[in-house]
Amino acid sequence: MSKSSQHILLALDAMGGDRAPDMVIEGAALALAKNSNLRFKLYGDQAKISPLLEKYSALIKASEIIHTPDFIANEEKPSIALRHSKNSSMRLAVDAVRDGHASGVVSAGNTGAYMAIAKIFLKMIPGIDRPAIIASLPTLKNPCVMLDLGANVVCDHNHLVQFAIMGDVYAQEILGVSNPSIGLLNVGEEEQKGNDAVQEAAKILRCAPNTLNFYGFIEGDDIGKGTVDVVVTDGFTGNVALKALEGMAFFIMTFMKEVFKTSWLARAGYLLSMFAMKKFKNKLNAKNYNGAMLIGLGGVAIKSHGSADGIAFANAIHVAARMVSHDLNKKIEKSLKQLYKDIKQNAPKVDVA
Amino acid sequence: MSKSSQHILLALDAMGGDRAPDMVIEGAALALAKNSNLRFKLYGDQAKISPLLEKYSALIKASEIIHTPDFIANEEKPSIALRHSKNSSMRLAVDAVRDGHASGVVSAGNTGAYMAIAKIFLKMIPGIDRPAIIASLPTLKNPCVMLDLGANVVCDHNHLVQFAIMGDVYAQEILGVSNPSIGLLNVGEEEQKGNDAVQEAAKILRCAPNTLNFYGFIEGDDIGKGTVDVVVTDGFTGNVALKALEGMAFFIMTFMKEVFKTSWLARAGYLLSMFAMKKFKNKLNAKNYNGAMLIGLGGVAIKSHGSADGIAFANAIHVAARMVSHDLNKKIEKSLKQLYKDIKQNAPKVDVA
Repeated sequence: MSKSSQHILLALDAMGGDRAPDMVIEGAALALAKNSNLRFKLYGDQAKISPLLEKYSALIKASEIIHTPDFIANEEKPSIALRHSKNSSMRLAVDAVRDGHASGVVSAGNTGAYMAIAKIFLKMIPGIDRPAIIASLPTLKNPCVMLDLGANVVCDHNHLVQFAIMGDVYAQEILGVSNPSIGLLNVGEEEQKGNDAVQEAAKILRCAPNTLNFYGFIEGDDIGKGTVDVVVTDGFTGNVALKALEGMAFFIMTFMKEVFKTSWLARAGYLLSMFAMKKFKNKLNAKNYNGAMLIGLGGVAIKSHGSADGIAFANAIHVAARMVSHDLNKKIEKSLKQLYKDIKQNAPKVDVA
Repeated sequence: MSKSSQHILLALDAMGGDRAPDMVIEGAALALAKNSNLRFKLYGDQAKISPLLEKYSALIKASEIIHTPDFIANEEKPSIALRHSKNSSMRLAVDAVRDGHASGVVSAGNTGAYMAIAKIFLKMIPGIDRPAIIASLPTLKNPCVMLDLGANVVCDHNHLVQFAIMGDVYAQEILGVSNPSIGLLNVGEEEQKGNDAVQEAAKILRCAPNTLNFYGFIEGDDIGKGTVDVVVTDGFTGNVALKALEGMAFFIMTFMKEVFKTSWLARAGYLLSMFAMKKFKNKLNAKNYNGAMLIGLGGVAIKSHGSADGIAFANAIHVAARMVSHDLNKKIEKSLKQLYKDIKQNAPKVDVA
């Protein structure tokens, strides 16, 4: 594997995910075709990986296989997986980042185990207490970024403020939005609404106009409307809301398919408008969006969906590469310091962690 | 106004809602046309109500106007509205229920003021700590019932258990579902997932198989899939999830309309499939579902949407009538007692309020 200073070297867990290792290799090849600066360390069963590489000559040159005797099964309990992870493809890929042998890691394996391993061995960005799950979602306007989508079921106001900073930097660096607007998800837009966590977080965010473009409280329907660029919420609410949206999209697609079957006129209409329907499906298709990922860790660690195919895994690789090349973690650290300075100047009485 | 023992007498706040009093009178006439047992006390400005009644001869016979000098404006702060509510149409309509002059009340007015007034003057069903907002939603299978949709931003496990009981009785009596399945909204289906409130609530609900058909934890996408008949959650999560769904439905409809405009082929397809699209819109149309309402109060008090039209208001009237004729509150009280007995037998160590 040749490597220059311009190259971005990523560790891939070749054994994680329902369709691994096939889709990992396919994803790496697709990603490389788009970005020739990528280099990979492939962690997994050499006997399985080598034959898959054969049809990708460019990828062979850009990769190195590191044989690992074990892998972590999808259904394994995170606590147990963690204990026996030492020689697994996932753990060794994460170790590579910790030890400076790779700039980032991508895995589609067991989410709980991956989160636990990444948290323990990569630690956190200084100033960030907990990692959050972040994703970009389609809206009526531009895609928005939403976090936390389920990493933390209980969050206090400091966590929400940190999520706001991470979402802000992510929207700028990964989605290319300048001065992204930040909304705090609540049960109403009025200042007095909501629980203690959102109330306190809003108080802090209102005092940092030099760091963040805080829009204020938003409601659930603002997500799909695209009212803001970054949606901040606790992991319980975020997870339920995101999955509710997925379920709704599924419901609507299924229902429409059924209805279009009910008459020949409707069916003819469906056939004629297939092109439109396809555009619509593309807009909703998760594959065209970056999968949910962990943000806040001390190293770049991207989680691809367990059922990811090559295209989805390639997207996850691109996100990792962008996070590395844009030095996302350093920028988050810097932005957090700026926030505290901002608050000290604007509202010296507001108490922040 | 004639009245026999079979009649259901409801107090209507004729001045509440964006389109009041017109849509209240229209709604009452529509409801009466469907259910001739209804009788109404109309609270509001006699000079405005009387002329509206003229075109509905059946309604004139079935109603009595109680002139009220005041009404509560939509934008008024609940705390201030409450203080000056004494002679308002809303307050006097609620008082009628408290004093036994009507079996239930319906208002489309200021939500916060209505909740405050209803809580103070109607009190709660014995054993229920807080009222919850409940609504029925379309799903891929049968409609489901969901609560709390925003009345309580912080809920402990006892509240969630009480919501489960109320949702169960509502699904049986109002939707006619026998032995409804109850799901507790969470970030995963596994027993160890979630925050303390859902963990503790699930422990209690698992111990009452003779009272409830508890399905277990469900995730956000189960709402649209119709996995369970009753979805139980805290008011913060429920409100955000419901509004996220509304926003998504709006997003999808708008997007499809735009896409159908992009080519003449797609437009022709759209025209041909209009019948199918109409069915789809009907399924999603909130007007065909009962509006969100308060459950748990010591008297029947239905809230119709602020922007309700006559059809929506008539639906709210029908729900109130059903709650009265099915003696919903007494059944909730009884079911709650049964739950505690059930738990005492099955799990004497479980601590319930």
